[in-house]
Amino acid sequence: MNLRTDLAVEAGEYRQLGEADGFLETVSAGEIPVSRVRIVNENAARLTGKPMGNYATVFFNGAFSDDELFDKAVDRTAEVLREFLKGAKNVLAVGLGNAEMTADALGPKVIDRLIISRHLKDQLPELYRELALGNLSALRPGVLGQTGIETAKLIRAAADAVNPDAILVFDALASRRVKRLCATVQISDTGITPGSGVGNHRSRIDRNSMEVPVISIGVPTVVDAATLAVDALQKIQDRMGEEGKAMASSWAEDEGQELREALGGYENNLVVTPQDIDALIERTAKLLSEATNMAVHGGLDREQIDALTGV
Amino acid sequence: MNLRTDLAVEAGEYRQLGEADGFLETVSAGEIPVSRVRIVNENAARLTGKPMGNYATVFFNGAFSDDELFDKAVDRTAEVLREFLKGAKNVLAVGLGNAEMTADALGPKVIDRLIISRHLKDQLPELYRELALGNLSALRPGVLGQTGIETAKLIRAAADAVNPDAILVFDALASRRVKRLCATVQISDTGITPGSGVGNHRSRIDRNSMEVPVISIGVPTVVDAATLAVDALQKIQDRMGEEGKAMASSWAEDEGQELREALGGYENNLVVTPQDIDALIERTAKLLSEATNMAVHGGLDREQIDALTGV
Amino acid sequence: MNLRTDLAVEAGEYRQLGEADGFLETVSAGEIPVSRVRIVNENAARLTGKPMGNYATVFFNGAFSDDELFDKAVDRTAEVLREFLKGAKNVLAVGLGNAEMTADALGPKVIDRLIISRHLKDQLPELYRELALGNLSALRPGVLGQTGIETAKLIRAAADAVNPDAILVFDALASRRVKRLCATVQISDTGITPGSGVGNHRSRIDRNSMEVPVISIGVPTVVDAATLAVDALQKIQDRMGEEGKAMASSWAEDEGQELREALGGYENNLVVTPQDIDALIERTAKLLSEATNMAVHGGLDREQIDALTGV
Amino acid sequence: MNLRTDLAVEAGEYRQLGEADGFLETVSAGEIPVSRVRIVNENAARLTGKPMGNYATVFFNGAFSDDELFDKAVDRTAEVLREFLKGAKNVLAVGLGNAEMTADALGPKVIDRLIISRHLKDQLPELYRELALGNLSALRPGVLGQTGIETAKLIRAAADAVNPDAILVFDALASRRVKRLCATVQISDTGITPGSGVGNHRSRIDRNSMEVPVISIGVPTVVDAATLAVDALQKIQDRMGEEGKAMASSWAEDEGQELREALGGYENNLVVTPQDIDALIERTAKLLSEATNMAVHGGLDREQIDALTGV
Repeated sequence: MNLRTDLAVEAGEYRQLGEADGFLETVSAGEIPVSRVRIVNENAARLTGKPMGNYATVFFNGAFSDDELFDKAVDRTAEVLREFLKGAKNVLAVGLGNAEMTADALGPKVIDRLIISRHLKDQLPELYRELALGNLSALRPGVLGQTGIETAKLIRAAADAVNPDAILVFDALASRRVKRLCATVQISDTGITPGSGVGNHRSRIDRNSMEVPVISIGVPTVVDAATLAVDALQKIQDRMGEEGKAMASSWAEDEGQELREALGGYENNLVVTPQDIDALIERTAKLLSEATNMAVHGGLDREQIDALTGV
Repeated sequence: MNLRTDLAVEAGEYRQLGEADGFLETVSAGEIPVSRVRIVNENAARLTGKPMGNYATVFFNGAFSDDELFDKAVDRTAEVLREFLKGAKNVLAVGLGNAEMTADALGPKVIDRLIISRHLKDQLPELYRELALGNLSALRPGVLGQTGIETAKLIRAAADAVNPDAILVFDALASRRVKRLCATVQISDTGITPGSGVGNHRSRIDRNSMEVPVISIGVPTVVDAATLAVDALQKIQDRMGEEGKAMASSWAEDEGQELREALGGYENNLVVTPQDIDALIERTAKLLSEATNMAVHGGLDREQIDALTGV
Repeated sequence: MNLRTDLAVEAGEYRQLGEADGFLETVSAGEIPVSRVRIVNENAARLTGKPMGNYATVFFNGAFSDDELFDKAVDRTAEVLREFLKGAKNVLAVGLGNAEMTADALGPKVIDRLIISRHLKDQLPELYRELALGNLSALRPGVLGQTGIETAKLIRAAADAVNPDAILVFDALASRRVKRLCATVQISDTGITPGSGVGNHRSRIDRNSMEVPVISIGVPTVVDAATLAVDALQKIQDRMGEEGKAMASSWAEDEGQELREALGGYENNLVVTPQDIDALIERTAKLLSEATNMAVHGGLDREQIDALTGV
Repeated sequence: MNLRTDLAVEAGEYRQLGEADGFLETVSAGEIPVSRVRIVNENAARLTGKPMGNYATVFFNGAFSDDELFDKAVDRTAEVLREFLKGAKNVLAVGLGNAEMTADALGPKVIDRLIISRHLKDQLPELYRELALGNLSALRPGVLGQTGIETAKLIRAAADAVNPDAILVFDALASRRVKRLCATVQISDTGITPGSGVGNHRSRIDRNSMEVPVISIGVPTVVDAATLAVDALQKIQDRMGEEGKAMASSWAEDEGQELREALGGYENNLVVTPQDIDALIERTAKLLSEATNMAVHGGLDREQIDALTGV
């Protein structure tokens, strides 16, 4: 039953949670639908495995094969981001993840495309005012194996230097549904839960540890192979009815063993990704960075952003 | 039942084929075991979906966490390659695959590490003789979407220019077992079967189309997600016995549907890979290139190869 | 006096050649000026060191800091390219150079951004017709040290497979003036002269060797350090008048020695580049590929091209 | 006269400084010579433009074409590093520079190859002890334009988190002599002088600002084009004797103008590099990282280091 998802909306869906459980969801339909989930009490937090707080999920399926839809997805994501930023002017963006691992490189790739402006305030004050830039700084902390330093410590240290109104943390996530891979973005005010994400970035990065609001922006880039297999089995059991269940119970205890055999005793974690994951990561990074540039630098239009972020 | 594997040894294993079927297998044990399969008639070719010919499979599990085992794996692979090269002196190496897709980039990455010598024969004849270099040239043909030109045509054109005794074709493969990912290399004299590999390199590259012997060297880097799921289901059905089978038959026709649902209606092909696939591809490319450098440049020892292939 | 330039317009300027010498130049002014040079006889060819034929040079200084100027530079380059293509429908694009060397990687980087369509004619005939695509295929032949195969041979072999109406060859050039680095593109119908370019791609690629028209598109990315130093010295000698010249003649024979000392006895060729050469190469590749996509795929507008070339 | 060099040994050479000036130099000859400079008073500091302190310069010309010499260069550099580390156990390594600019990417590339161990102390205490690892952590702070945060602030923040005994700062430098490019490493206890290096990393990183010893390790990767030209001119003036000097004085004031013309009015800084700078940077990063791994992880031999860092 250890199904791994970093999306609050999936956790609720799986458990079929509702208002009575402390799990409030409203969905605004449209070409780019947005689900807003509030986890309002400890009960819902326990049932979903997600901290209490707000989670917005933007669904942008199809945006990579339709230019207009892409632009709408950017606008919608920027809009939701603005809600979470609540007027923060001085923003530190952090790209979690290992730039050397394709499916984990989303965070650093978003950072590469942001319009960093904090230093321009002093260096080019006229340009800064004329473009009505926001105050954006950025960090690519790397992962523990590359630095030997806890990621949360590095971010906290950078935050102490920058003194931001809010921290945006970008990360690659795991979901339960392949249809959501590089097709969904979750924005939350609960920070990054330890142990989540594609890699393993350990300590919690949230309002408590950072002492400023932390907004996490995550996109699922992998499905755990074990999660996928368990899901498939469960569906079949469900179809078998009472008889089936009785019989199934006789081999249920060995089910895990079967799966482990099927998954081959490979010592590494196995993940399921689309075959063209490399290209999808690039496009997703483009979408998130454009939305962030729009949300933070309110004075810029799309053409200015394209020009400033270059080739 | 459309289980996808590019490994002859797996195709035989799955069908439990034997000598009576035209499928001959001998295994030499050891730290680095080698299986040698001969598909001797059309019956075995049909049952396995692989052309008649010779297939050697080197199993190098564990070589990436043990230096000595790595060196033994290189030596063993070089040895098998030499058997297939049958004394060919003038060799054209071809790296199939898309260098921009992590799991498909193995072929181009092997080429990057080969000691290319064909031009040195004229340019630096003394060095060429002194080092007792073989005559090695190389091509990275790209994929159809990048060139608009059939890969087989480009290779044939290069072969016409070089006039080699043998062509070595490196490619990333699909297997059925995750434990074989980046842990197994198949060397064969049957060329590359159309439609196999991770990408889709179309037309067949073999002795017929090239008019010289074609030796393919392939390493599985992905398992098809559908293959993995079908395998898991089958094992469970097998355990259910007669009763189960009867009942299962009632939903068997919908099984594909279930799987498609579980796999989420995602339009792209889904693949299963280890989470650290980026690093595994690098190490596998190192192993294959070292083995090839040894097999082709008989006069070089390991240290010379390391020095010549640089950083 | 061995001043190295790959630009015909610079060779004429240096020798102050004119109509009487067989060197015809007309310049069309404007925001993006274009010089058109015809080298009409063997005399001019000898004096310039460039083959007889047509050379157009587009000057796009400032285009990388002004979006509108960038678009104009793309349009102007596309226009000139169309003149040289003379209605060719089936075009093979070739990116010369070593993708692993920053200043030599321009050619391969242009190829990466082209809309390759040759294979779509059969695979997606409706889309092909609807978008009114031209027939574009591409080759990244690598350099001799990477392949062991003469570049010209590989291109000829690809041309035999594709049977194009024209071959476009992209390459990084050397110029005499740093102000022209990544600020000038030379388009010519004389092919690529052996030994030119940043790397050393040897055999001549032209109408004779390819048996179809060859259009070369080159951008200077480096100035030879020796060329720069000789130029500086010469200016000073010029200013010294008769006296100075007499005196200078006494040490003139050692001048080369002085320069070699100043250049430090370094065994490698030394080049002068702008400090931000990496970024300039990216932008130049963008400019050339957009112009080529426009010239070959006449039916596409700028937005369609941006969408089709992706991220 | 504004000749730019980051090497103390060159600054002394240029001014022909000696003991009387407060510039003490001793050279130990051998295959890999080492110069040790002490700048002992404010006078020498002013004349050289370098802070008071110790500078060791290791000359490793030829190490990239001779394996044995490469190993000796690594050993010698490790030895000198150990002297400067003075038994520091807890070391923070910092790679300055822009990973996206070839000639400035040396620092980040060194970091990529270090054996980071700080986190292993807790995670794998037995391995940590068994291998007798040092305590090494690392930071790639990026450059101001990428982060908007002063590099010195980020390093100080990381240092506060790690509390190291010493900070090693790797950077690409500028020298006056092309023969020293990627052929010389300067190790110093004076930190990094503001404004030095290839890029512009601004605030000073030294014992004062960091409150722990800062050891800088720099390799020249470029020569300023203006520096090269001024040097060449000066040599010629020197040869011209009294007469020449008198005459030269008449145009001396315009000399700068001549040079600017020769350098072409290009707005960017121009640099001189070897043509194969990309490959040289890789090899230099390998040399520095091996030396650092040896100096910090005293218990490891060369083979263990290769195995632990190797692809």
